[in-house]
Amino acid sequence: MNETFVVVGGDAAGMSAASKAKRANPEMDVIVFEKGEWVSYAACGMPYYVKGEVEDLDDLVAVTPEEFREERDVDLRTGHEVVGIDPETGTVTVEGDGETFEQSYDHLLVATGATAIEPPFDGLDLDGVFTIHDMDEADAIENYVTERSPDSAAIVGGGYVGIELAEALSARGVDVHLYEMLPHVLQPFGDAVAEVVEDHLREQGVQLHLDTAVSGFDGAERVERVAFDDQSRPADVAIVGVGVEPNADLAADAGIELGETGAIATDEYGRTNHGNVYAAGDCAEARHVVTGEPDHVPLALTANRAGRAIGQTVAGDPEPVGGIAGTAIVKAFGLGAARTGLVDEEQAREADFDPVSVTISAPSRAHYYPGGDELTVTLMADHDTGRLLGGTVVGREGAKRIDTVATALTAGMTVPELRNADLAYAPPFSPVWDPVLTAAKVLEGRLE
Amino acid sequence: MNETFVVVGGDAAGMSAASKAKRANPEMDVIVFEKGEWVSYAACGMPYYVKGEVEDLDDLVAVTPEEFREERDVDLRTGHEVVGIDPETGTVTVEGDGETFEQSYDHLLVATGATAIEPPFDGLDLDGVFTIHDMDEADAIENYVTERSPDSAAIVGGGYVGIELAEALSARGVDVHLYEMLPHVLQPFGDAVAEVVEDHLREQGVQLHLDTAVSGFDGAERVERVAFDDQSRPADVAIVGVGVEPNADLAADAGIELGETGAIATDEYGRTNHGNVYAAGDCAEARHVVTGEPDHVPLALTANRAGRAIGQTVAGDPEPVGGIAGTAIVKAFGLGAARTGLVDEEQAREADFDPVSVTISAPSRAHYYPGGDELTVTLMADHDTGRLLGGTVVGREGAKRIDTVATALTAGMTVPELRNADLAYAPPFSPVWDPVLTAAKVLEGRLE
Repeated sequence: MNETFVVVGGDAAGMSAASKAKRANPEMDVIVFEKGEWVSYAACGMPYYVKGEVEDLDDLVAVTPEEFREERDVDLRTGHEVVGIDPETGTVTVEGDGETFEQSYDHLLVATGATAIEPPFDGLDLDGVFTIHDMDEADAIENYVTERSPDSAAIVGGGYVGIELAEALSARGVDVHLYEMLPHVLQPFGDAVAEVVEDHLREQGVQLHLDTAVSGFDGAERVERVAFDDQSRPADVAIVGVGVEPNADLAADAGIELGETGAIATDEYGRTNHGNVYAAGDCAEARHVVTGEPDHVPLALTANRAGRAIGQTVAGDPEPVGGIAGTAIVKAFGLGAARTGLVDEEQAREADFDPVSVTISAPSRAHYYPGGDELTVTLMADHDTGRLLGGTVVGREGAKRIDTVATALTAGMTVPELRNADLAYAPPFSPVWDPVLTAAKVLEGRLE
Repeated sequence: MNETFVVVGGDAAGMSAASKAKRANPEMDVIVFEKGEWVSYAACGMPYYVKGEVEDLDDLVAVTPEEFREERDVDLRTGHEVVGIDPETGTVTVEGDGETFEQSYDHLLVATGATAIEPPFDGLDLDGVFTIHDMDEADAIENYVTERSPDSAAIVGGGYVGIELAEALSARGVDVHLYEMLPHVLQPFGDAVAEVVEDHLREQGVQLHLDTAVSGFDGAERVERVAFDDQSRPADVAIVGVGVEPNADLAADAGIELGETGAIATDEYGRTNHGNVYAAGDCAEARHVVTGEPDHVPLALTANRAGRAIGQTVAGDPEPVGGIAGTAIVKAFGLGAARTGLVDEEQAREADFDPVSVTISAPSRAHYYPGGDELTVTLMADHDTGRLLGGTVVGREGAKRIDTVATALTAGMTVPELRNADLAYAPPFSPVWDPVLTAAKVLEGRLE
């Protein structure tokens, strides 16, 4: 009898695993249960749908359900929710098509994703108050903006979702107020990035309310005001983007261990404490390449890569899921902001490093070549070993240079090694010393 | 008595070394002899001066002679040519200011650069026939184009200088014909890049004559025709850019050993066979990080980095000059083309590797995000070890991603290691799998 691989959740990790398993072992029965109707969609593209740069929500779908079923021969069942896992008997309990049934598995992947956190705000259920974590909600925001033409928006949370939505709603002609509880936006990117981004957001007309705790929303039926500290001000639409939490309850209820982050604990092959039960994507932990410790950084590449590796593993050719460096990049109007590894000195000390950081600014192109702009690069290293720990890049062009730093982290390079990397130079693309090299050069001086 | 550091040649390597030595050891006497009048200038910027994007040749000067003398306290003597080196007595013979004198040194750096190769063409001395390797020549080309408004140009050589000049002269309204002896332009970038670049050059109106050997130029006083194979055609201006050769005669005459490449042989600290005589920049060899063998790749970053390291070494704190990966990037009208490491299978076999290559095309941004373009990425690896050997990237945006590959080469990464690098993703910057990762993924499949 053929082996059965059951996947819970039809987005990046789940569908990557299903596709890879079926391709690697066409004899395997691969069943995916997805409780919604959307599969394999680019959640990261939703702000650009709201903005109007992506015309159709369907454009965000990488592979359609029909393609999975017909071309990839995956038994994809949308509208089916897995409500229980029994690792002892190797079965899951599924609700769908008006019935409840059991499905046995030889290998199981839990890829249940994450959910936007709903803080204990008043008025969260008012019309016009949204979180943004799935396609239906993106659609609802777009419709609301189109139908109501709001004058002003309250965006709660200065993370990348909040910033992308600020750009999207500004482009739609809405007066955007962004509320952040902490002293800076983009907290995981560090202060050097935050300050550049905040200046730029203000230049673009976004009203920033930093160090400001929103308590909720008021309105008759629809949201009319946002309340914060002891004040309130008008808001015709509100978006709450204060982070996500892993959907780990299904796993926890089945006795699958969670890690300290609250996401599902996994080993280097993505296995949980039950050997034939795997977890990947936004619901799972992954190992950080710098600290060597489990971490929870719910991002698309991690999900895709881990899913693919698990698909290969269950097909009989074990493949580690790979580490993460927490690399992220975000567009804020005309700016790119990027981070990788450890960028917070306190966090680095907690991981037993002795951190030294530098921040430099340098032109993105040769100083005499037209059209460039300033790039601000931060690098952090361990004083004793010279090992690179992380970095950030922010500027109008070239934020993707964070990949140089991310690659160096993956390779475990020291600062002198990075400083000696033979990066590409020509006047339209870089100064002779790429800004990343300049930062490494300056940091090296601090390590002596 | 203070130690004396003498530097021959006042461009990237020489001035980096002089500045660093003086900064690291202010007690040291640092003397630079430069036979011309320009120092520390960006030769790579000259095409953009001809194009008209850089207004003034002085804009290409990173640090002026006055700044070197006054702010950096370097004894810079322009118009002084070193005509002999005696490593036994530790002296150089110098001509300048109408006299010849001896200067003793404790440490010597030979940074004599390279010269544009002059092939045995007829009519090289006609007015309107240029090579481009120094500022005076860039100025002469610019003046000639301004004064004569040539209808058509013959550019001989499809390397990066030829391509940059093709762009520059096209922008000046000149009908450009580019002649290349080999079947493809940009030979060191491999066929995959060449084909994309050639299509683009043709779209931009450049007439390509590949596989075409120019024999020379005809004209009464000024160039009027270019002769090739058994034909000729009109050319009102001609630029010969067929490569450079190291200026190694001064060193060779002094018994300083040259390597197989014809450039000055050096060890990991940039030392020649005479322990206190160093060589760096376009006249010197450097060690290739992939082959481990000496190579001659005359590029600006290598010169700057080696000069800086040697300056630090002679100041008493020895610093290796670092390896090279042969990383290069060139703008060809709207395209960026980049390379690093080994990209030619035959060359890889000569270096005892068993090369496997793949070429993939992928979008530079998420498929649904507006404004991206196709990137073509080639990666090569050693079959037995999986070690990454080199790669190329070409496209309208994102050619700087070659830095990811260059960093991986510097770190000695394997293909699976690169494939697991946590690179940055957001829809405006990349697909989920960066094109470099996609190439690594496909190449990994070929290694199995």
